[in-house]
Amino acid sequence: MKVLVTGFEPFGSNKINPTEKIIDSLANEELEGISIITNVLPVVFKKADEILANLLAEHKPDIAIHLGLAAGRSSISLERVAINLMDARIPDNENFQPKDEQLRKDGETAYLSKLPIKEIVNELRKEGIPSVVSNTAGLYVCNEVMYLSLYHSAKFGFPAKTGFIHVPYLPEQVVEKFLTNGQNIPCLPLDLQVKAVKIAIQKTLKL
Amino acid sequence: MKVLVTGFEPFGSNKINPTEKIIDSLANEELEGISIITNVLPVVFKKADEILANLLAEHKPDIAIHLGLAAGRSSISLERVAINLMDARIPDNENFQPKDEQLRKDGETAYLSKLPIKEIVNELRKEGIPSVVSNTAGLYVCNEVMYLSLYHSAKFGFPAKTGFIHVPYLPEQVVEKFLTNGQNIPCLPLDLQVKAVKIAIQKTLKL
Amino acid sequence: MKVLVTGFEPFGSNKINPTEKIIDSLANEELEGISIITNVLPVVFKKADEILANLLAEHKPDIAIHLGLAAGRSSISLERVAINLMDARIPDNENFQPKDEQLRKDGETAYLSKLPIKEIVNELRKEGIPSVVSNTAGLYVCNEVMYLSLYHSAKFGFPAKTGFIHVPYLPEQVVEKFLTNGQNIPCLPLDLQVKAVKIAIQKTLKL
Amino acid sequence: MKVLVTGFEPFGSNKINPTEKIIDSLANEELEGISIITNVLPVVFKKADEILANLLAEHKPDIAIHLGLAAGRSSISLERVAINLMDARIPDNENFQPKDEQLRKDGETAYLSKLPIKEIVNELRKEGIPSVVSNTAGLYVCNEVMYLSLYHSAKFGFPAKTGFIHVPYLPEQVVEKFLTNGQNIPCLPLDLQVKAVKIAIQKTLKL
Repeated sequence: MKVLVTGFEPFGSNKINPTEKIIDSLANEELEGISIITNVLPVVFKKADEILANLLAEHKPDIAIHLGLAAGRSSISLERVAINLMDARIPDNENFQPKDEQLRKDGETAYLSKLPIKEIVNELRKEGIPSVVSNTAGLYVCNEVMYLSLYHSAKFGFPAKTGFIHVPYLPEQVVEKFLTNGQNIPCLPLDLQVKAVKIAIQKTLKL
Repeated sequence: MKVLVTGFEPFGSNKINPTEKIIDSLANEELEGISIITNVLPVVFKKADEILANLLAEHKPDIAIHLGLAAGRSSISLERVAINLMDARIPDNENFQPKDEQLRKDGETAYLSKLPIKEIVNELRKEGIPSVVSNTAGLYVCNEVMYLSLYHSAKFGFPAKTGFIHVPYLPEQVVEKFLTNGQNIPCLPLDLQVKAVKIAIQKTLKL
Repeated sequence: MKVLVTGFEPFGSNKINPTEKIIDSLANEELEGISIITNVLPVVFKKADEILANLLAEHKPDIAIHLGLAAGRSSISLERVAINLMDARIPDNENFQPKDEQLRKDGETAYLSKLPIKEIVNELRKEGIPSVVSNTAGLYVCNEVMYLSLYHSAKFGFPAKTGFIHVPYLPEQVVEKFLTNGQNIPCLPLDLQVKAVKIAIQKTLKL
Repeated sequence: MKVLVTGFEPFGSNKINPTEKIIDSLANEELEGISIITNVLPVVFKKADEILANLLAEHKPDIAIHLGLAAGRSSISLERVAINLMDARIPDNENFQPKDEQLRKDGETAYLSKLPIKEIVNELRKEGIPSVVSNTAGLYVCNEVMYLSLYHSAKFGFPAKTGFIHVPYLPEQVVEKFLTNGQNIPCLPLDLQVKAVKIAIQKTLKL
């Protein structure tokens, strides 16, 4: 059983990206009987597209779980739907800022997550980790990666199960943000974020 | 050197109070060369007043750090000022709900914290823990305890250093809250809350 | 030129619904050379579906603008996308609470709004009215109505232009909410909400 | 009966200040049998101090109501208490940024508002205007003006009734803010803000 887990490099005003640290942590771990492939994607629309296409073609993973930072959210967010659209409020890391552009001309307008999102949310809550189903993954590189993975699944049959999880800021990011804007900003420490992603993987393997 | 640390029992719609758990954790620990007295106060205006007066008279602590839950705040909040007023938005745990009542007729309108609040905030931030100076401790039992401790310090000279720290929800509390109201609610895990309180104690001892 | 504008009756803990008041206001007005049909829909999944289907069949409107309340949002929200799913966090007004049910078996997973959403947002901002494009209309009766109108447009060619606009609370609703939960809640007065909907109609007519 | 009403000029990243517009509006109006003196204060610690001292000495007002902008709050906030402290998170308009400095050496640590704050809040709510009693006016120039007016009242007996009211952003300010940070930001239009201040004046005159 092959599981692909991707995170992202930092972007915009964020000097670190918690998903990069989650990937580091997962890369060093062994989960029973499964092979985990990890990758930290660039926050660049075109490059993320190419790299993800190559990863899926090379590894043919059974499961793909894509991770991204949702600035300001307080909970682990299991994304429900990906939209066939790029519409960026800020430029990506190579200064490209698409407006209302389609991702795939032969793709559906939207795909629904193929992860057991409600089962994962329930399990996380049982473990005391704030978690929700989210109805929007935005229209930035996070949505792109989720869309492309589901498009690939629909076209080629794998990854059979794929979807996207947004995570909150780390506490140390909030410290830094607070100094400049003085607002109430939620966070969740890395140990709980890693635990949440492991639970998501295990729950997906079982269903 | 004697240090009094108080927390509170649960109140209102909260089934647990993180400060009760912090007190449990501190009670089991030894800090170099100091004697820590802990107490979990009732969220009852009159009883909290009596118990605190007795604790101060009995132990004559050098330092008193009082802890309370600030529902919805994202950061460890070092309170700056206590006001000579009770004005409760919800009844206390014995159903008493004072409106615009003074705490002490011979007390000042307000007392400023005698903890090194900015030094503590800076140290917590260095350690990656979100922290702020807060300009209001409310007018509920938290403010009462802070006021009484500072009033005692002003009248009798001890505790020489005293003040109040508000802490965020624990993650497991947010899970429960979220199910009923669906909103973005910040939290901070117990290990970071305990670490923050220890840093506050150590920083106060040194200054 | 026929324009259908729908609002909703109150639901959940809301005693009034601003969109019902907007409909009242529009029903009394004349806009140059166009015929406005108004309707206040029930917040009931099945009935809203039936009534909307009948309205579209009877009036064959060129344009349909559907309105709903987005509790807690601060801006006039032009919804971008409707999803083929009902997933209700609270029961509807006849106590039906669908979970992960499709709206139309022969419909697409999602439809994009056929209103000029960005042009409307820009025009509203020029007029000093806070406005955004929103990427989720939720999965309650609001999303159902938006989805069905776009499904009808895709199947039958009319309404040629249709979409959904979410509005904030009215100030008087916030007064009432605040008394029970004490939080910071955004609002926008009725006169600005009515003005915003008129601008949306006019902008759609012109494009 | 003489009433002094003050507002502030814009400051920090705000290009306009709603209280300046409220002052403009009040200056053109006549309220039954009372003389209203208005002034727009600079957001400069030392100058605001001097100008306010001169206004009080010159006019000897019976009532003084001071207004300021509270960025991000959703309600008309009747401030309860002013603190004998300046502690600025951002520099004032002449680049002075005091840290933990007293306002008056011979003043109390705090003064409580001498306006009928709860009666005003209740009246505003009856009129459908979101309103709260706030327990902190910050420690910037707003708090300074409130403190100095109450200090003057305590020392010299006039203004007999004085206090501070914080107002939300105007809608047009939120439009501009939103473009740069994309967040949910509450606002209240000028007509409701002016109405709220008039109600506060009338309620204070009657009590």
